[in-house]
Amino acid sequence: MNSWILKDNNYKESYQLKETLFSIANGYLGVRGSFEEGLNKEIPSVRGTYINGFYEKEEIIYGEKLHGFPDNSESILNVIDTQGIKIKINDEEFSLDKGKVLSFERELNFKKGIATRTVHWRSPKGNEINIEFKRLISFVQKELFLIQIEVEALNFDGDIEIISIIDGDVSNIVVEDDPRVGSANAKALKVINVKQENNCSFVEANTKNSNLTVVSGISHKYPKKFQETILIEQKNINHFIKGNLLKGEKNIFTKYAVYTDTIRYKNEMSNNIEILNSVLTYDFNHFASLQEDYLNNFWKYSNIEINGDEKMQQAIRFNMFHLLQSAGKDQWSNISAKGLSGEGYEGHYFWDTEIYIFPFFLFTNPNLAKNFLTYRYTILDSARKRAKQMGHTIGALYPWRTIAGEECSPFFPAGTAQYHINVDIAYSIIQYFEVTEDISFMAEKGIEMLAEIARLMYHIGHFRSDGKFCIDAVTGPDEYTCIVNNNYYTNVLTKNLFDKIGVLWNKIKATHKDKLERISAKIKFNEVELINFEKAGKEMYLPFDKERKLHPQDDSFFNKKVWDFENTPKEKYPLLLNYHPLTLYRHQVCKQADTILGHFLLEGETELEFIENDYNYYEKITTHDSSLSTCIFSIMANRTGKHEKAYDYFMNTSRLDIDNLHHNTENGIHTACMGGSWMSIVFGFAGMRVINGELSFRPNLPKKWESLNFKINFKNRVLNCYLEADTIEIKLIEGQSLKVNVNDNLIAVDETKTIIK
Amino acid sequence: MNSWILKDNNYKESYQLKETLFSIANGYLGVRGSFEEGLNKEIPSVRGTYINGFYEKEEIIYGEKLHGFPDNSESILNVIDTQGIKIKINDEEFSLDKGKVLSFERELNFKKGIATRTVHWRSPKGNEINIEFKRLISFVQKELFLIQIEVEALNFDGDIEIISIIDGDVSNIVVEDDPRVGSANAKALKVINVKQENNCSFVEANTKNSNLTVVSGISHKYPKKFQETILIEQKNINHFIKGNLLKGEKNIFTKYAVYTDTIRYKNEMSNNIEILNSVLTYDFNHFASLQEDYLNNFWKYSNIEINGDEKMQQAIRFNMFHLLQSAGKDQWSNISAKGLSGEGYEGHYFWDTEIYIFPFFLFTNPNLAKNFLTYRYTILDSARKRAKQMGHTIGALYPWRTIAGEECSPFFPAGTAQYHINVDIAYSIIQYFEVTEDISFMAEKGIEMLAEIARLMYHIGHFRSDGKFCIDAVTGPDEYTCIVNNNYYTNVLTKNLFDKIGVLWNKIKATHKDKLERISAKIKFNEVELINFEKAGKEMYLPFDKERKLHPQDDSFFNKKVWDFENTPKEKYPLLLNYHPLTLYRHQVCKQADTILGHFLLEGETELEFIENDYNYYEKITTHDSSLSTCIFSIMANRTGKHEKAYDYFMNTSRLDIDNLHHNTENGIHTACMGGSWMSIVFGFAGMRVINGELSFRPNLPKKWESLNFKINFKNRVLNCYLEADTIEIKLIEGQSLKVNVNDNLIAVDETKTIIK
Repeated sequence: MNSWILKDNNYKESYQLKETLFSIANGYLGVRGSFEEGLNKEIPSVRGTYINGFYEKEEIIYGEKLHGFPDNSESILNVIDTQGIKIKINDEEFSLDKGKVLSFERELNFKKGIATRTVHWRSPKGNEINIEFKRLISFVQKELFLIQIEVEALNFDGDIEIISIIDGDVSNIVVEDDPRVGSANAKALKVINVKQENNCSFVEANTKNSNLTVVSGISHKYPKKFQETILIEQKNINHFIKGNLLKGEKNIFTKYAVYTDTIRYKNEMSNNIEILNSVLTYDFNHFASLQEDYLNNFWKYSNIEINGDEKMQQAIRFNMFHLLQSAGKDQWSNISAKGLSGEGYEGHYFWDTEIYIFPFFLFTNPNLAKNFLTYRYTILDSARKRAKQMGHTIGALYPWRTIAGEECSPFFPAGTAQYHINVDIAYSIIQYFEVTEDISFMAEKGIEMLAEIARLMYHIGHFRSDGKFCIDAVTGPDEYTCIVNNNYYTNVLTKNLFDKIGVLWNKIKATHKDKLERISAKIKFNEVELINFEKAGKEMYLPFDKERKLHPQDDSFFNKKVWDFENTPKEKYPLLLNYHPLTLYRHQVCKQADTILGHFLLEGETELEFIENDYNYYEKITTHDSSLSTCIFSIMANRTGKHEKAYDYFMNTSRLDIDNLHHNTENGIHTACMGGSWMSIVFGFAGMRVINGELSFRPNLPKKWESLNFKINFKNRVLNCYLEADTIEIKLIEGQSLKVNVNDNLIAVDETKTIIK
Repeated sequence: MNSWILKDNNYKESYQLKETLFSIANGYLGVRGSFEEGLNKEIPSVRGTYINGFYEKEEIIYGEKLHGFPDNSESILNVIDTQGIKIKINDEEFSLDKGKVLSFERELNFKKGIATRTVHWRSPKGNEINIEFKRLISFVQKELFLIQIEVEALNFDGDIEIISIIDGDVSNIVVEDDPRVGSANAKALKVINVKQENNCSFVEANTKNSNLTVVSGISHKYPKKFQETILIEQKNINHFIKGNLLKGEKNIFTKYAVYTDTIRYKNEMSNNIEILNSVLTYDFNHFASLQEDYLNNFWKYSNIEINGDEKMQQAIRFNMFHLLQSAGKDQWSNISAKGLSGEGYEGHYFWDTEIYIFPFFLFTNPNLAKNFLTYRYTILDSARKRAKQMGHTIGALYPWRTIAGEECSPFFPAGTAQYHINVDIAYSIIQYFEVTEDISFMAEKGIEMLAEIARLMYHIGHFRSDGKFCIDAVTGPDEYTCIVNNNYYTNVLTKNLFDKIGVLWNKIKATHKDKLERISAKIKFNEVELINFEKAGKEMYLPFDKERKLHPQDDSFFNKKVWDFENTPKEKYPLLLNYHPLTLYRHQVCKQADTILGHFLLEGETELEFIENDYNYYEKITTHDSSLSTCIFSIMANRTGKHEKAYDYFMNTSRLDIDNLHHNTENGIHTACMGGSWMSIVFGFAGMRVINGELSFRPNLPKKWESLNFKINFKNRVLNCYLEADTIEIKLIEGQSLKVNVNDNLIAVDETKTIIK
C-alpha cells in the first residue's frame, strides 16, 4: 500500500461514496469525483461543483415561527458543471456501462494533488482503447480546474470525437427526513448568459436572493490534426473535437475550466476571460508541477509518519490532504462540515472549525489557521446584529451554522441555543495568540472579537444569590440534552475567556495603544467591563457532584434516568434518527464528548482524578453518534492511561471517511473528524499540550507503532518530534531554541536531537 | 344596561372584532357576525362559517424535521358561506358605506339566542328604509342557520330585490408571524357540486387530504307577491327575489340554510335535502321559540346573578352564552380555543377544555361536560399511536393540539412537551366521577383512558436514586419555561392520578366486573400495574425549597435570573412576540399560572402557608400574557385572603373578550378565559371546592356586590347558592338532602334555606 495514495479498482460499487472520497478541491473550488462521461442514471450520484462561500439564501418555513427565529437559510450551491466530457470512437460512445471494462483503476495522489483514472475499455464492436483521465484543481491558481485526457487506440485505427460540455443546468440535492443533509431549494442557480469567443465558452449564472453571480469559462487544447466545432444551447455549450486515431498513438486533450464569482471579483466575466487566457498559455504539466511544489511545502510542515501501521498512515494523510483541500483561504470562506466534497449540512460552517480543525492548521501552517479567524472577523457585524435579535443589548453572538454570517439554524434547541460557539471562537483566538504570538492580528481583529464575545457571555449569564456566575438555558456540544443550565463545557470555556481577556487587553495596550483606543471608541468599550469579566471568571460556577466526585454535564444531568443501552438494538443508532428529541433529553445519554471535551481543552480547571472519573462515567453513556466524539475520547483515554481504548477510538476516527464508518460519507467528508484524527495523534499519542505558554508532551505511543514522527510550529519555531516505544526525540528545525516540558520535566531543545526517555 | 344583551350602535369601528363578539353558534355550526350585505372591502373582516370538527389536514413544513415531529396539522375550515344577502331598492344597493345611516343598532340576546341588527337607512337618492335582520343558529335543529329580514319602506313606494347567495368560493385567513393565529392553506375547500331543485340550492365541497365533504342547502320564504329567479354559477348560486314595496308595509324574507357533513351523516346530500325540506315547514318564530325554550333550560341551571355590578353581570352571561355556543355536543367535537367564532389557533382543541371550561359544564350541565370526555375517548386510539411515535412502549399520549386526534403542534417545546395534557384529562375524568357518580361512563370509557394515561406517565417517569419518582424533560403550563425536570404542576397532577386510579379501579370492579375484564383483556392491563402506580404516587417528587418555603416551578427555576420587569416597556408585551424563547427560558418569568394552578387543583397536597408564599412569589413574576392566567390568580387571591386583588383579576378575566383586553378577540373569543370567569366566581368568590367527595364553600363576596346567586349540580342534586356580605344561603332544588362544608363546618342542606354566617 502506498500511503500517499487512495486507490480504487471497483467502479461498480458505491459510486456516490467515491464521488466524495475522490473529490478534489483547493479551498476555493471543489469538484466531486464523478466520471466525466457520467454513469447509468439509475446509479445514485451527486455530481457537484462548489465554490466556498457561494450560496443562495432561502426563506425558512416554520410550522410555528417564534420571535428571533432566523428568517433565511444559506445553502452552498452546486455551480456550473464543467466536468462533462464524452468520448466517441467510431460513433460508439465510451461508457463503463457498455462494452467491456478490461481494467479500471483510479487514484487520488496526496503528494501530487492529482486524481487520475485509467480505463482499458473494449467497445461493443470490439474496439479497444486506453484512456487516462487526470484532474487537478490548482492550489496556486485557485480559479482553475484542469482535466487532461490521454486516449490510445489499442487495436484499431478510427475516428474519435471528444464532446466537452459546460453546463449551467444544475441543481442541488434534496433529502427529506435527515436533518444532516440538505433541505435547500434544488434549483437555485439561474443561467443569465451563455457566450462563446475565440474557442472559449462561458456560462454565467446568478442567484435570486443572495444576489451572487458565478461565471465559468472553458477552453481546450488538443493535437493540431483535430478540429473543433461549438454548439451553444440555452444553458450549456458543447465543444465537439473531432479527428482520427491511429493505433498505438497517444492523443492528449486538455480542458481548462476557470471559475470566478462576484464575492471575490469586481468584473466576474472579464476577470474570468483574463484568467482563462492566461492559464491557456501553460500546459497541464506546468500546473501539475506547481501543484506538487505547493504540496511539498504543505507536507514539509504537516506530514506525519507512522511506522508499523500502514492503514493509519494512509488514513491520516488522506485526512490532512482533504483538510487542505477544504480549507477556505480568503476572508469570505471558512471550512464547512463537509468541505467542498458534498452538500451535507448545506455547506454550513460550524464550531467544528475552531475546536476540531483549527489546531491542525495552527500547529502546522499557522497562516492558514489565521484565515479562519479572519473569516470570523468578516462576519462580526452579522454576529452583533444577531445578538440584538436575540435580545442582547450588547456584544456579538456568532451563528451556530452559517455561510455568509446569518444564523441558519431552524431548530434552535440544537442550534442557536449552542451559545458555546461564541466561546469556542474565543478559545481559538486565545490559542492562536499563545501559539503564534501574532500580536498585530490580535490588535487588529482578535481583541475586538474577544471583547464582543465576552460582553455577550456576560450578558447572558448572571450572579446567583450565592455569588456564583451562572449561564442558563443553553445547549452544550452534546445535542442529546438541550437547553440546560450551567453546561460544564460552556461555563468552563467562558471562564477561560473571562480569565484571560484582561491580560490580553493589557498586553495589546502595551504595544498597540492607538489601535486599541480606536477599537474601544468604535465599540464603546469601557475598561470597567474587564473588571466585570474578571469577577465573573473568578466566580464562574462549574457544576461538580462532591459525593460522586464527578462533573455533571449540566445542573440536572445526573438526576435523569440512564438510557437503556442494553435494550436498544443496533439499528436504532444514530438515536437522533429514531427517537424524538424529548426521549433523548429525558435520559442520560450523550451524542458526543461534552464535559470530556471541556476537560481536554481546559485540563487545568480540575484535578486529573476527577477527569478520570468523568471519563469513566461519560464513556458508558456516550453513543458517539456524532463524528466529533471518538477523537476526544481517544485523546482523553490516552490522558487517563487507557492506551488500547485510545487506539480503538483513533481507528474509528481516522478511517471514518475512508471506510465510510458512519454510512453517510456519500454526502461529503467529515472535516471535523479529520481534524480530530490529527489531534488524536498529536494531543493523544504524543500527549502534546500548551500549558502556560509552554509546549509539553506526555507520549503514549501505541504498541503496534514502531515510531511516530511529526512537526510542530510553535512560537515561530518548527520542531520535529520523533517517538519510539519509550522515547521522544525533539529537534529544532527552524527558529530559536526553547524549553519544552516532557512528562513534567522542562528540557531545552535545539538543533541537535534531544532524546528523552 | 340589560345584562342579557350585548349591544352595539357603532358599525364604523372594530368591524372584525364585532364579527367575533356577535358570532352565533350551537356547538356544531358557527357563523361570525358579518353583515349579510358585506362592507367596504378595505375594512378588515373575517367572514366565516365553521363546523365543529370539520378540518383539512396539511403537511407541516419544518426547516429541520426531527424524529417524531408531527407530519400534518389539522385546521378548522371556513365552509360554504350562506350569510350573503344583498338588498336593492329601486336599483340602489343597500350598503352602510353609501347613503346615510340614520340609525343603527345590533344586539346579541343571550336569553333568546338571536342576533338582531336594525338599520334605518337613507339611500343616496333619498329613499328611506328600515331593515331588521334576525339570525339564529338552532340549538334544537343543529344543522339550521336562519336569517330573517324585515324591510319597511318609510318614505316611498318602489321596487325591491333581495339577492340571496350561497357561496362555496371561500378561504381561510393566513396571518404570518403570530403563532396564535392560523398558518393553514387558505384555499382548502373545493366545490364539487352545485345544484338546484324546487327552489332549494345546494353547494357541495370537499377537502383533499382529510377527505371530508360538506353540503349546504338554502331555501327562502317571502310574501306571495314576490317572484324568485335563480342563477347557478360555478361555485355559487344566487336567488333573486323581486317585488314591489309599499310605503309603511313590512315585508318579511326568511333564508333557511342547512349544513351537513360526512363526519356525522351517511348521505350528506340526501340528508341535507331531507332536513331542509323538514325545516321549511316551520317559520322563523317556531325556531325562535324552540331556541328560547332550550336556553331557558340552560339558564335554569347555569344562570349567575350578581347584584351591584352590572358590567360583571353582563360579562359573565356573555361568557356563559358563548361557551354554550362553542361547546361541541357530539363525540367528534370538543370546544376549541376560539369556539366557533374565529380561526385563531386553527380551531384546535387544547387542555383549555379540561382545566378551564369543563368545570362550568360539569357543575351546571353535566351531560354537556360528559361529551368532552367522550370526545377524548373517540381519539384514544390516536393517542395510543402518538405514544408509540414518541417512543413509549405502552399507554396513550394525548395530542397537545388537535381536531381529529393527530398531534398538530409543530413547535414541540411548547407543544408535545406539555405532557400535562394527559393528566389534565385524567383530572377531568376523576372530577367528573366525583361530581356525577356516573360509574357506567367510568366503566365504559373513563377507566380505559385513565389506565392508558397512567401507563404513559409511569413510562415517562423514573425512580431517582433516592427513591423519588421524577418526570424529566416536560413543559408545564407556563410556556415561558420549556423542557424542564419535575415541573410541580405536572408532577402533582400525575400524583393525583396515581393516588386515585387503584381505588377507582376497584370501585368499578365491584359493580362492572365484566366490563372491566373486557377492557383489561383489550389493553392487556395487569393489575400489578396498579401497585406500580400507587408506589409512584406515594414517592412522587414534588419540588420544594425548604429554606424559602416555596415550591419551585421546576428543578431549576429558582436558580435563574428574575426577569427585569422594571426595564421592560409596555409595548414589549406579550413577551413571546418580542423575545426569543431562549431569552424567556433563561429567566424567572411566567406567562401564566403554573404552580399556582397546581395548588388550586390539588390544594390538599401542601400547606396553605406555602400556597400563600408561592402566590406572593409567582404573582411578581407572572405577566398573564396568556388569557388562562388571571382567573387562577383571582381564585387563589381569594383563597389567600387578597380580596381586592381577586376582584381586579376577575375584571380582567370576565371582560377580556367583551372589552378586547388582549387586543386579539378579532381572531375569536377566548373560551378558556370565559370558563375561567365562571370559575373565578364559583371557586373564587364562593370558594367552592370538592374535597374528599364533599362540597365545600369559603365565601369571599366582593365588597361591591350586594349579592351573588348561582346553582350547582352535584351528585344528582341541584343546589341554589345565595351569597350576601357575610352570609351564604344554600337550598336544595333537586335531589336528596346532603351535607356541605362551609368555612370548615359541616352543615346539612335541604329544600329549606340553610343560612350560614
